[in-house]
Amino acid sequence: MRSIDLNADLGEGFGDWRIGDDAGLMALISSANVACGFHAGDASIMASSVALAKRYGVDLGAHVGFPDLAGFGRRRMQIDTQTLAHYVTYQLGALAAFARVADYPLSHMSFHGALGNMAAEDESLARPLLAAVKAFDPNLIISTTAANAVERCARELGLRVACTFLADRAYQANGLLVPRGTPGAVIHDPQQVSQRVIDLLKSGCVTAIDGTRLPMAVSSILMHGDTPGALALIEQLRADITDQGGEIRPISKHFIE
Amino acid sequence: MRSIDLNADLGEGFGDWRIGDDAGLMALISSANVACGFHAGDASIMASSVALAKRYGVDLGAHVGFPDLAGFGRRRMQIDTQTLAHYVTYQLGALAAFARVADYPLSHMSFHGALGNMAAEDESLARPLLAAVKAFDPNLIISTTAANAVERCARELGLRVACTFLADRAYQANGLLVPRGTPGAVIHDPQQVSQRVIDLLKSGCVTAIDGTRLPMAVSSILMHGDTPGALALIEQLRADITDQGGEIRPISKHFIE
Amino acid sequence: MRSIDLNADLGEGFGDWRIGDDAGLMALISSANVACGFHAGDASIMASSVALAKRYGVDLGAHVGFPDLAGFGRRRMQIDTQTLAHYVTYQLGALAAFARVADYPLSHMSFHGALGNMAAEDESLARPLLAAVKAFDPNLIISTTAANAVERCARELGLRVACTFLADRAYQANGLLVPRGTPGAVIHDPQQVSQRVIDLLKSGCVTAIDGTRLPMAVSSILMHGDTPGALALIEQLRADITDQGGEIRPISKHFIE
Amino acid sequence: MRSIDLNADLGEGFGDWRIGDDAGLMALISSANVACGFHAGDASIMASSVALAKRYGVDLGAHVGFPDLAGFGRRRMQIDTQTLAHYVTYQLGALAAFARVADYPLSHMSFHGALGNMAAEDESLARPLLAAVKAFDPNLIISTTAANAVERCARELGLRVACTFLADRAYQANGLLVPRGTPGAVIHDPQQVSQRVIDLLKSGCVTAIDGTRLPMAVSSILMHGDTPGALALIEQLRADITDQGGEIRPISKHFIE
Repeated sequence: MRSIDLNADLGEGFGDWRIGDDAGLMALISSANVACGFHAGDASIMASSVALAKRYGVDLGAHVGFPDLAGFGRRRMQIDTQTLAHYVTYQLGALAAFARVADYPLSHMSFHGALGNMAAEDESLARPLLAAVKAFDPNLIISTTAANAVERCARELGLRVACTFLADRAYQANGLLVPRGTPGAVIHDPQQVSQRVIDLLKSGCVTAIDGTRLPMAVSSILMHGDTPGALALIEQLRADITDQGGEIRPISKHFIE
Repeated sequence: MRSIDLNADLGEGFGDWRIGDDAGLMALISSANVACGFHAGDASIMASSVALAKRYGVDLGAHVGFPDLAGFGRRRMQIDTQTLAHYVTYQLGALAAFARVADYPLSHMSFHGALGNMAAEDESLARPLLAAVKAFDPNLIISTTAANAVERCARELGLRVACTFLADRAYQANGLLVPRGTPGAVIHDPQQVSQRVIDLLKSGCVTAIDGTRLPMAVSSILMHGDTPGALALIEQLRADITDQGGEIRPISKHFIE
Repeated sequence: MRSIDLNADLGEGFGDWRIGDDAGLMALISSANVACGFHAGDASIMASSVALAKRYGVDLGAHVGFPDLAGFGRRRMQIDTQTLAHYVTYQLGALAAFARVADYPLSHMSFHGALGNMAAEDESLARPLLAAVKAFDPNLIISTTAANAVERCARELGLRVACTFLADRAYQANGLLVPRGTPGAVIHDPQQVSQRVIDLLKSGCVTAIDGTRLPMAVSSILMHGDTPGALALIEQLRADITDQGGEIRPISKHFIE
Repeated sequence: MRSIDLNADLGEGFGDWRIGDDAGLMALISSANVACGFHAGDASIMASSVALAKRYGVDLGAHVGFPDLAGFGRRRMQIDTQTLAHYVTYQLGALAAFARVADYPLSHMSFHGALGNMAAEDESLARPLLAAVKAFDPNLIISTTAANAVERCARELGLRVACTFLADRAYQANGLLVPRGTPGAVIHDPQQVSQRVIDLLKSGCVTAIDGTRLPMAVSSILMHGDTPGALALIEQLRADITDQGGEIRPISKHFIE
């Protein structure tokens, strides 16, 4: 059975505000995407997140988003790509500084929220943003859902890509997600979520919503830490994976064998 | 005659707003302190400033301040030192990212405005902030006025220090500035400013306000680019220095002979 | 037995972030201090808070603070008083706009966090800030703890003042709070808190930490909604007050009899 | 000859940053659109702008934009209309507070930048935003270019509308502007600009780019104060209008005869 990375967004508070239980989550996952102060996160939270990642041996990634604390980076903004590329550089550098001070590596990055959605749809946006990532550090792994502009442009630029599987979302036969709002788009039953992951690890495939067996070359499972019961669900999934002989390994370990 | 660095604060716009003529200034100085997005500056301006520094061979430094765009970092804020140390790390990392992408070194840093004043007065603040600088990059030169807590703590931590001379400000016999508001505190006559610099370069001393000859171990002259006629004044000073056989050399060059 | 107002700070989220259960709290209190977007709160949260206040007949107040979302308004900032007075005007106007649109009155205001502490200590700050309040609306009631610069200046300016009693804090014989950190400064036992309130309502006095009986001319009890068990505590206090024949009345009702 | 209002955007600095010569401009125009702290402007600048408007008898308007200082409100943001309506209320209230304190009326409002462009194109956006304006103050005049969704929805809601003429822009026969970038879209010759205004005042028509005579029911001429030579141009235009027997009258005066 293949090994897999458990990945989650983290460090999404700001000032006195918090979302989710970062310490609890960090103990369960194997790679973290840490907000960099634009859509969420601040210098103190970033320092704490890096310290937690180091303590638990969790791979550290930058979660790069729009400069929009009020909208949590979920509101599309029409910003010229040159400026956006500079925003990417700025955020990567800020988080990398905390990694450097903690003597712990920055291993990967992903795009957050509306920026992620816009880049996934549009190569003319994804390409310059990923070029900015590459100019900063060509060894950073790009974490993204598969079959979109981010994956294509990252591979075209010679960057390493770790595709993520959304275990609680139904897929279409073409590898794209069933859009939210469509019946069956979100899978709520924890057992079914676990089963999909085990199936994927054993067979390398998921069953699409139309019954098609869909090969998925994924390295990560993206978990959400901010929903009630999330930690219990992730703990269960960890147990199910290891019970079946699977191994949970950080995102960067999928590229060194 | 000794060599000297001409140093100025720069990149102090935000969004569409600008202060000073950065391109004109960069052509005249030998080291620049670039705002990092907290009290001024943004990702695009930082990218431009780094590109200008590289074009003109100007040493690139981080100008680190309070998170207060509305007050330009000039308003004192009572923030716990741990958080402030994280703010230092964040700002250094953000600017270092643009340096890295441009393949141009970050050579020095200084504290801006109210943060600079507070650190200059208080070792219990200066020490942890400078420790954060050292943890990020022990080779960064600390640019500061002499004889204050920042200089003392930087030396104590084994960091390299470049003391700056404020050519248009009168000094007391103890090496501290004559406070603004005191008669004679600010020297407005450009010729007198030039003369003080030439005197310093030739003799290693300045004449304090009470007539005392005061030895000044300085590497930099801090220029202000945002006043009317500033560029003409700096151009004149450059000419006066080189006419007298002096040499203008970037801040980092003062540590390699 | 006298009537009393139950007062709490509220609307202290920002964007997607939330603190406390605003809807639950609003059902229990009789006056609310709503954050105005500077230290916390945003336009949507303000609109919701006004709607909740109107639904429950709770008096609506502006909670005015420093422009420091990252520090929740709890970090002192050295801002000139003229600028601070403009910040007061801005925040009052913003909240008053939501009140106007909802056709519900703005009845009172108070200063939040570090701004509140600084104004309480210094008449030369309190006076111009309160003058700004008066210039905006001379009918606004000033909510403050007693015996400080805010109370004195508000009375001097002819403004109505509603002094608040901190039921879970010990008082000194001079009417000031026992500073946090001093043994006995905070009263944790809910029954003791209730008893102090009942005592105050019956006798008009509290027992200071040294046993002195201290007359307290207060109109409000300030409750904190963001601690675990806060709502249950407030519900119990309400019950205790009404069981003893006391009446809970909004802050503005204390000035119309 | 008809009377006309000279209208300009103003108060567009932030903190220490400034754009344009607000005091010089205020002496020449008859109505001002003042930024409210979201895309530009802050509490102190708003207070100054209101004081200047009062001194010169200039009509005071709110210039309402996106919460995007970094982009000067010129970047489109996909924000749900309910939240945007709250942003409108917040900004109107903030500026109205300074008007109230100065005892000077708020007479009109307009949408700035990207928010203005989006509202002009889309009635489903313009309608709720204008409903928020009406709920705040049904007497506010809506200043807008003609023949767009803002004008239509404002009239539909029973609001008073002051259409603005862009004297330096060519118009199409349907009353819409010739898009920037099209040859002839922008008129650079000051004399030609003046002539178009005089023609409009005398005949009530402008000559469209195809030669069609186009009736324009406008009350205002929108001037730009932030370009070099802007003040001289406006001064010339004032002289030309009054030389021809025209009268310059604030925006609100066009609704009371």
